[in-house]
Amino acid sequence: SVSCRMEAVRNRLAECSQEAHDLYLNQSVPYLDGPPEPLQFHRDWIAPNKPCIIRNAFSHWPALAKWSPDYLRYKVGSKVISVAVTPNGYADAVNGDRFVMPEERQMSFSSVLDIIEGKVDKGGGVFYVQKQCSNLLQELPELTADVQPHIAWMSTALGKLPDAVNFWLGEANAITSMHKDHYENLYCVVSGEKHFVLMPPTDRPFIPYGLFQPAVYHQRDDGEFEVIDQSDSEMVPWIPLDPLNPDLERFPQYRRARPLHCSVKAGEMLYLPSLWFHHVQQSHGCIAVNFWYDMDYDIKYNYFQLLEALCEVTRST
Amino acid sequence: SVSCRMEAVRNRLAECSQEAHDLYLNQSVPYLDGPPEPLQFHRDWIAPNKPCIIRNAFSHWPALAKWSPDYLRYKVGSKVISVAVTPNGYADAVNGDRFVMPEERQMSFSSVLDIIEGKVDKGGGVFYVQKQCSNLLQELPELTADVQPHIAWMSTALGKLPDAVNFWLGEANAITSMHKDHYENLYCVVSGEKHFVLMPPTDRPFIPYGLFQPAVYHQRDDGEFEVIDQSDSEMVPWIPLDPLNPDLERFPQYRRARPLHCSVKAGEMLYLPSLWFHHVQQSHGCIAVNFWYDMDYDIKYNYFQLLEALCEVTRST
Repeated sequence: SVSCRMEAVRNRLAECSQEAHDLYLNQSVPYLDGPPEPLQFHRDWIAPNKPCIIRNAFSHWPALAKWSPDYLRYKVGSKVISVAVTPNGYADAVNGDRFVMPEERQMSFSSVLDIIEGKVDKGGGVFYVQKQCSNLLQELPELTADVQPHIAWMSTALGKLPDAVNFWLGEANAITSMHKDHYENLYCVVSGEKHFVLMPPTDRPFIPYGLFQPAVYHQRDDGEFEVIDQSDSEMVPWIPLDPLNPDLERFPQYRRARPLHCSVKAGEMLYLPSLWFHHVQQSHGCIAVNFWYDMDYDIKYNYFQLLEALCEVTRST
Repeated sequence: SVSCRMEAVRNRLAECSQEAHDLYLNQSVPYLDGPPEPLQFHRDWIAPNKPCIIRNAFSHWPALAKWSPDYLRYKVGSKVISVAVTPNGYADAVNGDRFVMPEERQMSFSSVLDIIEGKVDKGGGVFYVQKQCSNLLQELPELTADVQPHIAWMSTALGKLPDAVNFWLGEANAITSMHKDHYENLYCVVSGEKHFVLMPPTDRPFIPYGLFQPAVYHQRDDGEFEVIDQSDSEMVPWIPLDPLNPDLERFPQYRRARPLHCSVKAGEMLYLPSLWFHHVQQSHGCIAVNFWYDMDYDIKYNYFQLLEALCEVTRST
């Protein structure tokens, strides 16, 4: 019957995830001991769309030794940067029936450091320097000499330069909710550590999406946060599930997902492949720099678009 | 309704093909002017799974100048090789309700040349040296010094050696019916020319498959061919459609396929990507050598398996 066949389609989508794990994915995120050759990296990791952690890939960056709070105050303390402020640490995440974005606040770098070091009363918010518009090059050019403008072997492998180099600095409770990007991502932890939950694109059938009214947080003068709808904006598709505490009654399919967990320590670089779902936490005051290379919109992207569309068509609810 | 959604699944499979053409495929098979760098070839052609024709990639092969019938008679004339013999030129193809394989005949190379040159009455069959078991290295080792045991830049790109190097020599009416292989294929035309019909894996929804009783041709002493069932063998899935003369009443979906046609001339090399459907014809006496590199069973294979299974599940007949 047609209804049986619909169930068969649904089952087949789930089997695709199972086969990916059996066929080519690893049980955990493997380590490379040094920077790879461009061809080998393209063949072993980028083309098959598999994550890995690379050690000793940026040991020569002055940032690793230099980027103490004192140094950063001296170098860029007076610079004004964009900071995401939220009541709960969740910037760009589902809250109830809304997709809520952070209050974007312009602050001096010094005052962000004061907050992270606990030197001032921050007035109730959670602060995260996480602006993903190449903020390292745009907002903090004084720091670029301490890192690299691109990762040579990755640029050679992909035949292009990164679209963005982002600087990340945040509190322990600043969280990036589960999502995916159309970038090949090299995530370099300079100090502290980042904790990732990763899921391959083929786990898409188990990952719930909803459509949410966009809104932004706004901290009032009395310190309370309010949520202000962006009524003119289109509904935003986002993942309402928290992989650290999944609501399995509401999202029973998620039982079948097989998230990989990994911690990336200072001096380590995560290769986070395009279209992998990821959720990120960090140690307090963790500093990271990441490189976003636009993905190739080729057969893999094409197939993922099919998978995603079929997940929507076959949704039982 | 469920039945509407089933139709939506079917439409989405077709859209995937359309998107592939819009997104990353070419309208015709592009040419490269010389042997590529391994990384560039991996990035531009292997990873995105796109065919191309490479010129001047084996200009230094002695075979190009040497492999005349006289030279071949002198070098390997007395060697016994496997030849596929059929009544109609179709080896490994659907004939009525059967999948019919050729009679595999052991013959001296000289007698094959006699037939192709029209020097003897061949007694009604069509002859094709097409045994795909690394027959160049296995059956004709005397010829290997005239070519190469592998293609250096491809072996470097893939990080492995070919699984097989095959020698092809056949009559004008010897045809390879539409199928796909799990190999990255480099097809080098030494003399004459080969005509390919190519379709990407994403055209799978438009390509009909059936299950057929396997059988083999056998030429009787009176010269007539009979078809002998291989009753003990399992049914074979194959494509009953002839892309040169498609039966669109029987296979209406094929109207939506977008085959690429290309001719590969002496001195040219076709990169035929893994899982691309292909149908092959040739000029009379065309000689070719091809290299089969096992494909990587990674995310692309995984996605194709899904596509293939969904085509089966959603078949309307």
